[in-house]
Amino acid sequence: MTITTIGLDADDTLWHNETIFRLTHDRFVELLAEHGDREHIETRLSATEQRNLRLYGYGVKGFTLSMIETAMELTGGEAPAAVVREILAAGREMLSHPVETLPGVDEALAALSENHRLVLITKGDLMDQERKLAASGLGDLFAAVEIVSEKHAHTYDRVFNRHGTGAAEAVMVGNSMRSDVLPALQAGAWAVHIPYAVTWAHELADAPEDDPRFAALESIGDLPGWIQARIGQA
Amino acid sequence: MTITTIGLDADDTLWHNETIFRLTHDRFVELLAEHGDREHIETRLSATEQRNLRLYGYGVKGFTLSMIETAMELTGGEAPAAVVREILAAGREMLSHPVETLPGVDEALAALSENHRLVLITKGDLMDQERKLAASGLGDLFAAVEIVSEKHAHTYDRVFNRHGTGAAEAVMVGNSMRSDVLPALQAGAWAVHIPYAVTWAHELADAPEDDPRFAALESIGDLPGWIQARIGQA
Repeated sequence: MTITTIGLDADDTLWHNETIFRLTHDRFVELLAEHGDREHIETRLSATEQRNLRLYGYGVKGFTLSMIETAMELTGGEAPAAVVREILAAGREMLSHPVETLPGVDEALAALSENHRLVLITKGDLMDQERKLAASGLGDLFAAVEIVSEKHAHTYDRVFNRHGTGAAEAVMVGNSMRSDVLPALQAGAWAVHIPYAVTWAHELADAPEDDPRFAALESIGDLPGWIQARIGQA
Repeated sequence: MTITTIGLDADDTLWHNETIFRLTHDRFVELLAEHGDREHIETRLSATEQRNLRLYGYGVKGFTLSMIETAMELTGGEAPAAVVREILAAGREMLSHPVETLPGVDEALAALSENHRLVLITKGDLMDQERKLAASGLGDLFAAVEIVSEKHAHTYDRVFNRHGTGAAEAVMVGNSMRSDVLPALQAGAWAVHIPYAVTWAHELADAPEDDPRFAALESIGDLPGWIQARIGQA
């Protein structure tokens, strides 16, 4: 087996992200507490996000707009200006939040980049993802960065052809079964799932069964060893 | 002279865009008419947009958030919910607006794509730009699409190396002197300016003086002839 290229998801694979979304969710629930309990508010927000994905895509700006829209829905169209201002401020804070890499990421990427081409493959807002990569200090380790609107099998096919030697000689690594693992396997790549503490409902999916090209690892620190063990195998 | 690759800006080069922003500006001015005259409101909105570029980047979602923020500023933090709802709706309408290609675009691109590699190079929201390209029906004519957060000289250098034979054998075509023409020339590419009826203030800049690699054309319909005339020249 040859692996020339390693695709890495960014949010919640290299650095914390969902945690920051959760904190903003908590703040949103508090802001609108008189209009429903947590479950009701979360359900409405999630429905708005889902409905707006087609227009807004992924990322903080669309999430901020969806929070404002949900606040309007929950208040019968009469959200107080103070609530809207708080939501705008929460969005701005998310966009300027310090980037904290996950344990083991720096060492694992430094080791992997010695013998492999690393490619960052992520959804989200263009400028926000570029900012986070720069702030993470990991930028120089990547041969290429692809910020994409969706992660389908053809996305991985295209990216691994453009930046590597095709999907068959690539591994995709990420925390989302739905976006990182399943479509990469479908494209013919290997895939490694490294779960994060919290997963956005939209990204949940079942693990593939009995797929020899799939592995679940507890930490990215285990990735160099896993790849090393596979190289040279049939 | 050899030209292998043609970079094309999207908004206001291939299809109408600023016109739709202007219509939304007009609607915004009307919504807030009791809080200032047109000039005052436009100035404040423009200042908010400029301040937020670093966080929001380019595109409709950031513009919508900046309109809400400006409405708050103009009303002493007390924008009525109806105004916020109108702004949200205006943003959604912009994101689902039909795409209307500019006169001559379809024919010019069809002709150019026969002998050149066409690369779309644009700022804006990822999903919105992909939607517009799909809706324009021009997608198949492009060898590559690059949605970028900023258009600097190093952006053109990178894109023309990745998708062509380097900047020296590429032409960049667009309506913005500041984003399309000047940085492309700086990267060593040729550059063609095709003005649009309205230009966003942020994109204004003086034309380069006496640069043999620069041309201004009235319409994209003149582009195939201009390139043809240059091929074979020293």
